[in-house]
Amino acid sequence: MPTGNLLYAQSGGVTAVINATASAVLQAARAKKVRVLAARNGILGALREELIDTTTLTAAEVKGLAHTPGGAFGSCRLKLKSLADDRAKYERLLEVFKAHDIRWFLYNGGNDSADTALKVSQLAEEFGYPLTCVGVPKTVDNDLAVTDCCPGFGSAAKFTAVSVRECALDVAAMAETSTKVFVYEAMGRHAGWLAAAAGLAGEDKNDAPHIILFPERVFDEADFMAKVDAIVKRVGYCVVVASEGIRRADGSFVADAGGGKDSFGHTQLGGVASHLAGRVKDTLGYKVHWALPDYLQRSARHLASKTDVEQAMAVGRAAVESALAGQNAVMPVIVRDADEPYHWHIDIAPLAHIANREKTMPKGFIRKDGYGITIAARRYLAPLISGEAPPPYGRNGVPNYVTPTMRTLTRKLPKWTGK
Amino acid sequence: MPTGNLLYAQSGGVTAVINATASAVLQAARAKKVRVLAARNGILGALREELIDTTTLTAAEVKGLAHTPGGAFGSCRLKLKSLADDRAKYERLLEVFKAHDIRWFLYNGGNDSADTALKVSQLAEEFGYPLTCVGVPKTVDNDLAVTDCCPGFGSAAKFTAVSVRECALDVAAMAETSTKVFVYEAMGRHAGWLAAAAGLAGEDKNDAPHIILFPERVFDEADFMAKVDAIVKRVGYCVVVASEGIRRADGSFVADAGGGKDSFGHTQLGGVASHLAGRVKDTLGYKVHWALPDYLQRSARHLASKTDVEQAMAVGRAAVESALAGQNAVMPVIVRDADEPYHWHIDIAPLAHIANREKTMPKGFIRKDGYGITIAARRYLAPLISGEAPPPYGRNGVPNYVTPTMRTLTRKLPKWTGK
Repeated sequence: MPTGNLLYAQSGGVTAVINATASAVLQAARAKKVRVLAARNGILGALREELIDTTTLTAAEVKGLAHTPGGAFGSCRLKLKSLADDRAKYERLLEVFKAHDIRWFLYNGGNDSADTALKVSQLAEEFGYPLTCVGVPKTVDNDLAVTDCCPGFGSAAKFTAVSVRECALDVAAMAETSTKVFVYEAMGRHAGWLAAAAGLAGEDKNDAPHIILFPERVFDEADFMAKVDAIVKRVGYCVVVASEGIRRADGSFVADAGGGKDSFGHTQLGGVASHLAGRVKDTLGYKVHWALPDYLQRSARHLASKTDVEQAMAVGRAAVESALAGQNAVMPVIVRDADEPYHWHIDIAPLAHIANREKTMPKGFIRKDGYGITIAARRYLAPLISGEAPPPYGRNGVPNYVTPTMRTLTRKLPKWTGK
Repeated sequence: MPTGNLLYAQSGGVTAVINATASAVLQAARAKKVRVLAARNGILGALREELIDTTTLTAAEVKGLAHTPGGAFGSCRLKLKSLADDRAKYERLLEVFKAHDIRWFLYNGGNDSADTALKVSQLAEEFGYPLTCVGVPKTVDNDLAVTDCCPGFGSAAKFTAVSVRECALDVAAMAETSTKVFVYEAMGRHAGWLAAAAGLAGEDKNDAPHIILFPERVFDEADFMAKVDAIVKRVGYCVVVASEGIRRADGSFVADAGGGKDSFGHTQLGGVASHLAGRVKDTLGYKVHWALPDYLQRSARHLASKTDVEQAMAVGRAAVESALAGQNAVMPVIVRDADEPYHWHIDIAPLAHIANREKTMPKGFIRKDGYGITIAARRYLAPLISGEAPPPYGRNGVPNYVTPTMRTLTRKLPKWTGK
């Protein structure tokens, strides 16, 4: 039985399955008799010495986390800078780790978190403190390097594809006398992975979505309007899926135009979908509707992809194994062995290959005209949304999501005064 | 075997389960060897003599409709006026009915459609044409008189409650360093039924949604802001569910303020959620997010309520039975026998009691402070979102929704020149 504690922290935007990873981490550690502490609100909890003792969670609660969205221990958006710029923070982290005998640190997040985990491991080495740091991948943006895909993405992608298909059936039924153009806004500031996943909603030329707008392509309004009009005339209606991050040729975000002030001088929060819908109405005169699913798309555990849940748990288990085996500054990644039938396995990659990098969509995934996905994209995306993993529901009709009571350890150090 | 054809038409906004009603209508009629024609795009198809021969649909397609959202035969927003004002249209309908030997007319919609079905029955009687008109209830707004609830509502309500619960878990995890106020916009221009259903997402005082805004109550911005602020300070974050139809004391829609022009002078489409989010940001300075699920909430067949699907099919079967039994100008309605355990049965009510009426929420369903639901509301709402009825999924990860090829009958009359 190894001595010392394992610290687990969640970072950045949460997903439908990050708690599945947490559940797997806790289960794997318990099997090895390793005590897991969890930082409350990610790295912030480590800095503040707000550490949750996960041993008080019942086995049922740990199991229940695997079907609960959100981030059970709290997450945060706090990017640590370089070791030079944020040295005080890194040193404080090490102090907290020492005070609580933390020998393994699992940081569950995206490329920023991989960078933080890497830097913590470097400082620990510099200080001669025996610490094994392991990154655990997570992000609905699917933009991590090395790994074939990111836990969290598959479920958000499934939500996107299914929702666009359902809305398209609605619009198709009403188009003769009502809405002719429907715009769906997908998350994705820099990479159009989620918008691309909407492409799985249809297969034929006339199937929705008829237009997908990627941040990887320059948005040309005139060309877009001509395309919308042609589709309405041919199909009877047009379903558009827009990435929040699309830009014009001059580099400006289309979403920024959606904001401004309303007629009372109040802040008007915009977005790509509301802006495009307004422009279609003004330019083409069609009745429009638009949807901004926002957090719904990344928290819809009720519609999680089975593949995604399995991978989220697999990286959690692998991270514990790597950590206990002393594999420092690494991250478990997903390797694709075959598209159809889909096979994958977990490999271990150096954090240095992942930290601060960003994977955009391969050019070969976007159709030549820039408004749809290719066969190669379908081959990549389809397995990731495959299979269902519904949560158990209560008699009240709502899933039995668990929110365990958390016990925070007594502080051993002076209060952290940084921020 | 009765002679003549039965005409089925879908009307108004479609739902996740209106096709379940259609499926039940077709199955019940087939069992009685009655041929069903379906009007393409609702009453418009009847006027245009665009009649679909449903006998070409396979048994598997008819069964598949029961798990397919949207409106398989097309719907429309076309409200017929009084017999005096729209006499030409009503007479055209009768001509089409006569030309195709239609003896039973099933109109699947809300209170407008109930009115249309009633008027058609009156004119048929005046002309001595033997026609039995039966309304079939449908609306996510849940605002039909007489019936205890409306098919379509339960599934939209379940989507609302589950989505709000999921988003709340997301916000809770991020609130320390990110979004503190989240606003979810629910459909409901005149009645707050769907917003009320969001109340099922939580049970305790500190559970989301913390604030529900009903169109039945006057919106007071200062009071609302004070409440949001107090909740953020007490709970750490605040989840608001707003009905699209809320108004200020002067009667103006809050949603209307959300629109206007953007900085380029383009139409800015607004909404309640974007407006409230902007005001919270301006007034309280909290980071906000908002969601506008729009059609997602009424087309989410993947998250349908089992109760709702069963009731949607039951009204379809009952409508066929009533029609074939010659019960004219009626509508099958849902009668609640008990809340817990929930029991219900189908009764038959006169269309005259339903047409053009609107059921708002009982006062006793809204909490005294105006920002939440009561125990009585929970008792009413809970059974309606109870149970799951997931569609079958394909290996591609998307539900196997059916879109049968439709064969339209050859026209027998001159083209309709009205509009």
